[in-house]
Amino acid sequence: MRQSKLFYKTQKTVSEKIEVTSHRLLTKGGFIDQLASGIYSLLPLGFLVHKKIENIIREEMLRIGAQEVFLPALQPKHIWEETGRWKNIGQILFKLKDRHGKEFTLGPTHEEVITQIVQKHVHSWRDLPVHLFQIQTKFRNELRFFGGLLRAREFVMKDLYSFHPDEKDFENYYKKVINAYLRIFKRCNLKVRVVEASAAGFTKGVSHEFQVLTPAGEDTIFYCSKCDFAQNKEIAKVKPGQNCPRCKKGRIIKEKGIEVGNIFPLGTKYSEAFDAYYIDKKGIKKPIIMGCYGIGLGRLMATIVEVNHDEAGIIWPKEVAPYQIHLIPVEMQDKHVLTTAEKIYQNLQKGSLEVLYDDRDKVSIGEKFVESDLLGIPLRMIVSKKTLSKNQVEIKERNKKTIRLIRIKDVIQFLKEKHYV
Amino acid sequence: MRQSKLFYKTQKTVSEKIEVTSHRLLTKGGFIDQLASGIYSLLPLGFLVHKKIENIIREEMLRIGAQEVFLPALQPKHIWEETGRWKNIGQILFKLKDRHGKEFTLGPTHEEVITQIVQKHVHSWRDLPVHLFQIQTKFRNELRFFGGLLRAREFVMKDLYSFHPDEKDFENYYKKVINAYLRIFKRCNLKVRVVEASAAGFTKGVSHEFQVLTPAGEDTIFYCSKCDFAQNKEIAKVKPGQNCPRCKKGRIIKEKGIEVGNIFPLGTKYSEAFDAYYIDKKGIKKPIIMGCYGIGLGRLMATIVEVNHDEAGIIWPKEVAPYQIHLIPVEMQDKHVLTTAEKIYQNLQKGSLEVLYDDRDKVSIGEKFVESDLLGIPLRMIVSKKTLSKNQVEIKERNKKTIRLIRIKDVIQFLKEKHYV
Repeated sequence: MRQSKLFYKTQKTVSEKIEVTSHRLLTKGGFIDQLASGIYSLLPLGFLVHKKIENIIREEMLRIGAQEVFLPALQPKHIWEETGRWKNIGQILFKLKDRHGKEFTLGPTHEEVITQIVQKHVHSWRDLPVHLFQIQTKFRNELRFFGGLLRAREFVMKDLYSFHPDEKDFENYYKKVINAYLRIFKRCNLKVRVVEASAAGFTKGVSHEFQVLTPAGEDTIFYCSKCDFAQNKEIAKVKPGQNCPRCKKGRIIKEKGIEVGNIFPLGTKYSEAFDAYYIDKKGIKKPIIMGCYGIGLGRLMATIVEVNHDEAGIIWPKEVAPYQIHLIPVEMQDKHVLTTAEKIYQNLQKGSLEVLYDDRDKVSIGEKFVESDLLGIPLRMIVSKKTLSKNQVEIKERNKKTIRLIRIKDVIQFLKEKHYV
Repeated sequence: MRQSKLFYKTQKTVSEKIEVTSHRLLTKGGFIDQLASGIYSLLPLGFLVHKKIENIIREEMLRIGAQEVFLPALQPKHIWEETGRWKNIGQILFKLKDRHGKEFTLGPTHEEVITQIVQKHVHSWRDLPVHLFQIQTKFRNELRFFGGLLRAREFVMKDLYSFHPDEKDFENYYKKVINAYLRIFKRCNLKVRVVEASAAGFTKGVSHEFQVLTPAGEDTIFYCSKCDFAQNKEIAKVKPGQNCPRCKKGRIIKEKGIEVGNIFPLGTKYSEAFDAYYIDKKGIKKPIIMGCYGIGLGRLMATIVEVNHDEAGIIWPKEVAPYQIHLIPVEMQDKHVLTTAEKIYQNLQKGSLEVLYDDRDKVSIGEKFVESDLLGIPLRMIVSKKTLSKNQVEIKERNKKTIRLIRIKDVIQFLKEKHYV
């Protein structure tokens, strides 16, 4: 993409009301635009990152045998009454009427809709298990919304629902999802802790949150310095400094975290509400065991920024960066520099690399570098009279201090070694 | 995909209330599920088709230099008041309040949101033109909704908005979009007529609809039997049978049509409402000229079915089919048949072909064929004892009567010739 054509605009300063780092950097860099409190547009740069995250999640869902669907946001009142949630979580529902006076809510989640569908499809143990996911917009009438994409009122979520004949089958799949989630977060360059949380009385067990430890988080986590023990504030019975109740060796640490994913055993709450039963091998009618598994894409994107930035701006991990390479010619008026930069741009694109090419002639090189740091593209490639005198380009990775000179003919090989190709 | 694992269920009969062919076939085939009147879930098979359509549209949008964004569905009242549309098209808006009492609408379209964003980005002629599109869910509080995906209340739409310094630049882009739309519909195996329609007083000119002529359509079109003259009922001043006013040679024909796309010159209505002006080369402040361009994905999917089906079911065009090949072994209990089918399944997948492999052992071959015709996968490949005796498979394309025997080792070559690979 030629930067002169890219629809974006960086801002030198943003409103003082924007306190959270990711919110500030995504706004300054022109990734998002606020339409109303807690409601954001994804601009082209933001869309590209969001799409990469979407693709990573989709790949990992398909890998664990989940099939993709797309369910409506507009959901009729009566299905929410079946589960009692029209009242129980009524405050968080955006409620509205159609022109015939029928009541609806905008789906904050889709257990009601999906269980109804599965009920129509599943009758025998042969029809199970079922694993369905979607990547779709959710609406939550939150009391508080802050931090830009960290807690929005409208956001895209990946929600997976699984349906099993028995607890054992459910537990096996639950473990598979944990591993899929760990792969997703790793690909986003996030270190997560799998944290025990309340299962809200659905089952006797616990649910699990995937927490990224950072001071920007809203949640409070207690975890062990040595083993994988970790609980959120709501269920934790430990205190900072005490010995770990699990390994007896480590000490309990208290820290803030952002929940980037959660997985939840639903037991038979929804299957019983919607009469989602099946006939087992012995001919006995049983309720289907369910689980649900969510990842908010916008929050994930913001969290990546929270833990991947420096003073100058964002440092996108390779897999989610809007572009992989930022190509910047220094002396735009020099014909040799310009034609070489153009040629490199074409060649990188032919090599399937995603390149942002700063072809703007009215912008100073100092401004270009400042903006480049803010946008956070992982690798910067500079073409100048000086480097060309040795048939080289200058390469700097956004997350490193070192500058390297690479011969132009070796560029693709270098990018291969660095896993950009 | 192994058919035994695919989450779908065909229906032998559907409600008599379902009158429209595409609605009936998509329901019978398990592509969609109705949640409420005019509100549908896309089940895995339906999602696959919808996604293919989405990808075709995205490719063609990127090809004409449009950049992708993602705008909110929840839109505050005040921006709709700026354009007068809170009242003027108020009946079609789903209106709601958040828990603080603030009023919102669910976006039936996004002129208000996008113009506001562009206003913040564009100041000089250097910043123009701008072409932004999204593929996002729209909500319309329709009085009537019918025909399944043909007119839903919630549906995914591709909406493109363009912003130009002058009429000439606008007109050039408008023509580019027409060509992009023609490529999209061609790839979906749809013949469209570009039909003149009212520009609703925005500009002195006309807007254009892309109409697929079919008795299932809601719109009435008058067009010439010889030239490209075509107008919709609202603006047409011709009658069936009369001489064409444009070429003077053809005769006017009256037919029903489904509008699968529309393109619209917006003039300066929205740019003036949101103060979206720019400074031209001479330093003069001018309002930005706008155009908007829509395609409803669900309606497009339904229209494809309307004109690509027979008595037995759907006939998906190759590019939008959920799978390209339906692989069906006849004698499931025969070891040679089964192992060969498995091997073919693996090899086709390695060759990047999308295969639905009917590995179900409890279903009669008769039922399998009936279902295969209903699902409408373009190419059926049958493995049987008889064909294997000559190291062959039987191949039948869904849209043809002829059955061909192909040697197993020549299958990939055959598929290449037929443009499946």
